[in-house]
Amino acid sequence: MAEVLVRPAERTKVVGKEVPRLDAEAKVKGQARYADDLSFPGMLYGKAIRSDRPHARILRLDLSKVAEHPKVACVVTAKDIPGRNCVPIIYEDMPLLADGVVRYVGEPIALLAAETKEDAEEAAKLAVVEYEDLPAVFDPLEAIKPSAPQVAVPEAAEEGNIFNHMVIRKGDVEKGFSEADVIVEGEYRVGYQEHAYLETQGMIAVPEENGIAVYGTLQCPFYVQKAVAAVLGLPLSRVRVVQTATGGGFGGKEDVPSQVAAMAAVLAWKAGRPVKVVFDREEDILTTSKRHPGIIRYKTGAKYDGTLTAVEVEFYYNAGAYQTLSSAVLWRGLIHAAGPYRIPNVKVDAYSVATNTVPCGAFRGFGSPQVIFAHESQMDELARRLGMDPLELRRKNALREGDETATAQVLTESVGLLSCIERAREISRWEERKREVEEFNRREKFRRRGLGVSTVMYGVGMGAKAPLLDKAGAYVKLEADGSITVAVGNTEMGQGAMTVLAQIAAEALEVPLSAVQVAPVDTSRVPDSGPTVASRTTTVQGMAVLDAARKLRAKINAAVQELLGCPKFVVEGRSFCDPRDPRRRVSLEEVARWMWVHNWDMGATGWAEAAPVDWDPKTGLGNAYFVYAFACHIAEVEVDALTGETHVRGFWAVHDSGRIVNPKTAFGQVAGGIAQGIGYALLEELETRDGRILYPSFTAYHIPTAMDMPEELVIDFVEAPYSGGPFGAKGLGEVPLMASHAAVANAISQATGGRLRQYPATPERVLALLESASRS
Amino acid sequence: MAEVLVRPAERTKVVGKEVPRLDAEAKVKGQARYADDLSFPGMLYGKAIRSDRPHARILRLDLSKVAEHPKVACVVTAKDIPGRNCVPIIYEDMPLLADGVVRYVGEPIALLAAETKEDAEEAAKLAVVEYEDLPAVFDPLEAIKPSAPQVAVPEAAEEGNIFNHMVIRKGDVEKGFSEADVIVEGEYRVGYQEHAYLETQGMIAVPEENGIAVYGTLQCPFYVQKAVAAVLGLPLSRVRVVQTATGGGFGGKEDVPSQVAAMAAVLAWKAGRPVKVVFDREEDILTTSKRHPGIIRYKTGAKYDGTLTAVEVEFYYNAGAYQTLSSAVLWRGLIHAAGPYRIPNVKVDAYSVATNTVPCGAFRGFGSPQVIFAHESQMDELARRLGMDPLELRRKNALREGDETATAQVLTESVGLLSCIERAREISRWEERKREVEEFNRREKFRRRGLGVSTVMYGVGMGAKAPLLDKAGAYVKLEADGSITVAVGNTEMGQGAMTVLAQIAAEALEVPLSAVQVAPVDTSRVPDSGPTVASRTTTVQGMAVLDAARKLRAKINAAVQELLGCPKFVVEGRSFCDPRDPRRRVSLEEVARWMWVHNWDMGATGWAEAAPVDWDPKTGLGNAYFVYAFACHIAEVEVDALTGETHVRGFWAVHDSGRIVNPKTAFGQVAGGIAQGIGYALLEELETRDGRILYPSFTAYHIPTAMDMPEELVIDFVEAPYSGGPFGAKGLGEVPLMASHAAVANAISQATGGRLRQYPATPERVLALLESASRS
Repeated sequence: MAEVLVRPAERTKVVGKEVPRLDAEAKVKGQARYADDLSFPGMLYGKAIRSDRPHARILRLDLSKVAEHPKVACVVTAKDIPGRNCVPIIYEDMPLLADGVVRYVGEPIALLAAETKEDAEEAAKLAVVEYEDLPAVFDPLEAIKPSAPQVAVPEAAEEGNIFNHMVIRKGDVEKGFSEADVIVEGEYRVGYQEHAYLETQGMIAVPEENGIAVYGTLQCPFYVQKAVAAVLGLPLSRVRVVQTATGGGFGGKEDVPSQVAAMAAVLAWKAGRPVKVVFDREEDILTTSKRHPGIIRYKTGAKYDGTLTAVEVEFYYNAGAYQTLSSAVLWRGLIHAAGPYRIPNVKVDAYSVATNTVPCGAFRGFGSPQVIFAHESQMDELARRLGMDPLELRRKNALREGDETATAQVLTESVGLLSCIERAREISRWEERKREVEEFNRREKFRRRGLGVSTVMYGVGMGAKAPLLDKAGAYVKLEADGSITVAVGNTEMGQGAMTVLAQIAAEALEVPLSAVQVAPVDTSRVPDSGPTVASRTTTVQGMAVLDAARKLRAKINAAVQELLGCPKFVVEGRSFCDPRDPRRRVSLEEVARWMWVHNWDMGATGWAEAAPVDWDPKTGLGNAYFVYAFACHIAEVEVDALTGETHVRGFWAVHDSGRIVNPKTAFGQVAGGIAQGIGYALLEELETRDGRILYPSFTAYHIPTAMDMPEELVIDFVEAPYSGGPFGAKGLGEVPLMASHAAVANAISQATGGRLRQYPATPERVLALLESASRS
Repeated sequence: MAEVLVRPAERTKVVGKEVPRLDAEAKVKGQARYADDLSFPGMLYGKAIRSDRPHARILRLDLSKVAEHPKVACVVTAKDIPGRNCVPIIYEDMPLLADGVVRYVGEPIALLAAETKEDAEEAAKLAVVEYEDLPAVFDPLEAIKPSAPQVAVPEAAEEGNIFNHMVIRKGDVEKGFSEADVIVEGEYRVGYQEHAYLETQGMIAVPEENGIAVYGTLQCPFYVQKAVAAVLGLPLSRVRVVQTATGGGFGGKEDVPSQVAAMAAVLAWKAGRPVKVVFDREEDILTTSKRHPGIIRYKTGAKYDGTLTAVEVEFYYNAGAYQTLSSAVLWRGLIHAAGPYRIPNVKVDAYSVATNTVPCGAFRGFGSPQVIFAHESQMDELARRLGMDPLELRRKNALREGDETATAQVLTESVGLLSCIERAREISRWEERKREVEEFNRREKFRRRGLGVSTVMYGVGMGAKAPLLDKAGAYVKLEADGSITVAVGNTEMGQGAMTVLAQIAAEALEVPLSAVQVAPVDTSRVPDSGPTVASRTTTVQGMAVLDAARKLRAKINAAVQELLGCPKFVVEGRSFCDPRDPRRRVSLEEVARWMWVHNWDMGATGWAEAAPVDWDPKTGLGNAYFVYAFACHIAEVEVDALTGETHVRGFWAVHDSGRIVNPKTAFGQVAGGIAQGIGYALLEELETRDGRILYPSFTAYHIPTAMDMPEELVIDFVEAPYSGGPFGAKGLGEVPLMASHAAVANAISQATGGRLRQYPATPERVLALLESASRS
């Protein structure tokens, strides 16, 4: 029985230590420069003229008044784009500028650049667009009907408005349900979730010698490079993308920056001047991607002892008007639909559907939180029906090493789920707390408490949907004074990546972390290193840094051998010593200086690609991801039965992300993910009408504050090391958000005695749950 | 007899072709951004408060009024420098800010940063400095007297004010002169030459995360990195230096940018804001380095047949108050003192001397033009005394393959000097022209024409004075669309380096030049690649690019083999073909895409170090440089005997710089060097009094214009390939300037019948020559 999966960690000096984030000081002191902090001489301000119709034919586009505005430098329409009129992501269905037809409210139709931001906004109002409205559809279940208006660009859709339909067919669900003693079924609904990054989208394009440089807030510099090259018709080498300090991404800066950069670039190219495009919050909320709203139907069967026999899932994600990342988002939802459980029979049908709404995209968890809400609710409903402890039900079915996932992938290593569950049980004092909650609920009249559990698995990296993106390059250089420069292709967006990567370099090179400086991310420094998404940075980019550092270390070792004249040496502090005569020693500074004087090449490149994956789209079976991370979250909520308000009192989160390179930044990731999950479950809701987002501001869209955080928050890690990761590390970033909301949701269901089937659990919905429970 | 040294060149497609400079369009259109074109949000303007005494003790430095100026953000004195108060170049004698004593007019004492340039200038005037004047000395011959005041910082001087004394002792000059039939002797004097780069010195320091970035006009990014790290006390990895478009250097941006950058950096560090320091022309002329004034004494012996028997040289360079690059400048003068001739007995004593004047530094030719003026004048004087044709005298003594230089270095390859002389004779129609000039002079009364010759050799690269700097790193990356990114550590300052390096990459990779983009030079991209000086960029940086490109090409070849499934393939245009079935072909774009999809590492680093050199400072003998370039220049001048004005009518220049990578840019280098040499010989003079430069502007310091260029200008190349250079290339940049002025000087001497022994040949001096000739 593989209960204890945590193996003793490799002995390390910097990795595994709680070092502060390297970017902390600059950010705390206000010295970090975000996109909107930058300006370039002669810079113009770009602005999009956007559709105010959800679906319409453009009859007339008159920009003469815009062009005549004395402060307008140039105007760009679809026909002025020198390259391809598209924002290339997975498909190329989304035009940069609508050409004849608009498909959602906020779709860009034309661009202008003016001397100031105010001039640009003023001039944008002078555009005259005449439309012929077309029938529009906003709901995915409506959009898939044969009678629905065609939204999707046909080349980008499998059929009608179905962008993608993906399946898993494992075992025989009919047989599985026939073997079940208990079956639960339910439909779950989630709405938009807004990324609510502190820094809105922003890009500056600067024409430079024979090409263009683009600076801005982004996750995926190589995506932006590709998009700008496409719209300008330039070779990739002539487009240089530099990331500025990035105030949060959460997936919202995976694809959208390609669009924003392309806007700035076509304006800058035409004007021959730098152009800044920065969205204000309203424009950002109205027009940028969000988490896909979903309608998710589950049916789960189990035996009386809790053993799962089958799960059947059908879900529909509202993709919006264009593909963007929806196929990848859908795929992750598909693979994660059955949860971290042993289930012999699985049938999943996943649909992403085009509607006349803003395109949805990547968001932390990437299509999985929606199905996790559902499958974890199902587990709780099952537990209730079976009279089983919900933690015990999960423990019983949890995947172990050697088990098969829902895609029939055998987990050969690094499966720390049981350890997570056991550790969560311990730190939450589960049994005791259950009794305390029961007592409280017996005692109190208008307050109800509940405990909720959520267990998740997470496929690290791009997986078999895009293995060609799961790679990374790195460059490491020893300076003449012994300090270290590192260059990478993945980005810091607040998650602590640069600190973790610097730790990996420092560990491999045996230098203090203070000697390591990470250069600004610039596409011309390293080969395409894939996107900074999918919790892959520590694992894949980390392996590339490790590879480069080890090569450099080999050069340093060779130099030490020459300097000390001995084949073997020992490292003591920052010195290298001859073991035969410990007085013979050289410092790293001396070695570096010696290498410099002797004209050694003191640089090294590193490369990593993820371990192979494979997957059969027909059956949905295969080795979907190279490794999985796991978590078990427990939440305790208190519901005010009079007002319907919910407060999360306590939260206990245990993660297996393999070796934790930096417990301090890992803690931050988990705490932040819990906050974002609380927001998803309790607060965050965008009201829409006819494809229009009605109140695009944070006064209407509530994100959690410190006041919404639990009084008791305990975060812990179990480390089931991954042999393919740096020092055993797997991914972490997305997992906390994925797990947290469902624990809160289950806690609310337990507290109210109802069953929360729609996010967010607003006071109105909670009161309805209480009412339904009291009726039953 | 190794007369014909030009070997058939390697067959190439891009190398050797006249392609336009890659930076031409941006520069012609005004799109290139120079340091002063850049600004950063929150940027301050820095200004130095400078000494107005040549030598004085600072009794009181009161900056209270400066600091109280409402627009002044910060003030920095020597004691505020967080690291070392020095500008580290070869020595560390020069403080960044004078601490107690000033040693030249213009020496920086304090710094301030203010909101605008005007505020900074206004505030600088509020500084109160009280001095106690110290005895000062301005002439090197005075400064070496025992009674002279001590100028040099003792640790940086060999003795008294002698910074350095270097020697060559080859053979026995006494014996050589005793064997001579004819001996000529002379003293030659040259004054300052101002670099007169179009763009003055300018740097912007920008605090960035955990370090600082410095942007500016410069030749040597790694020097600047070292200087900024020193004054801030930071590790090298935390200082990132980025070159901006650079409007000329000519050596003047070798060392001075270290000082300017250090100024901007200490201000930015203290203020916590970006700081720009840009000199206006007056400040630039007054306070930055120039070509060393020199007093050069020669004695040359020859047999009646012209065979040189001995040369004895003693020269003194006025180094100014601090060492900066003087020891290196002196060394190059030393090595080049005997010219490109076979001379069995050589004795050279070279001195660089400290005086209370602005420090002199690097300037195209680096200490050699001064001695070339002298040795080429000596050759002409000898020819006149021997009644020999001056070209024939040079041909007779010219170094051939297998010969020994003045430092007893045997030239084993790539000696194209004889070919240069013969080709110059041809293209100038030497014999015919001599007769035409004679006829003209017989015919005309008030106009005199003359022909002058100059032949030079040039040791490429850093030589044995600093072999540890003769290295370079490069990075080359194949993009997914088949385009190429190149990163290097040497700089473009107008010489065409980036075009040549891109051609080398394109050639090695067999891609069109348009596919290659060179990334901005940034110290964090490649290892310390040495300075961009000494005509070493094409040779050494070029070899590094070639190394990287060949490694990348090997990867591409491996991919092609996998794709075509054949061990051998042929390249046709941009396609790779299976020779067994030419229909089976893949394009580079397809190969690149395939490599990208298959997660290949598409980057490669390259490295080059110059071939070994050695040199014994006691005897001055050794293999001083890894290879030499050669040239023969012929000038025809016309002197107005009434006004003394000289005009260069015709110029014929032939160079052996090995393989010429780009004849167009090479032509530009030679034409520019001829112009600069005409300026040196005829026009350029800085008047000084008591260590003060009197008229620091281009209205008083005349640089040549298009009107000063010869009507007939013929430039040609012979190519004696160097096996250690890329495609056989050696260095070129400095050589044209080195050769040109002496040809003009000799032409004036011939025209006037006098002997020009001091630059520039102003009308007054020319009239004096005519008068002395008419008297003799």
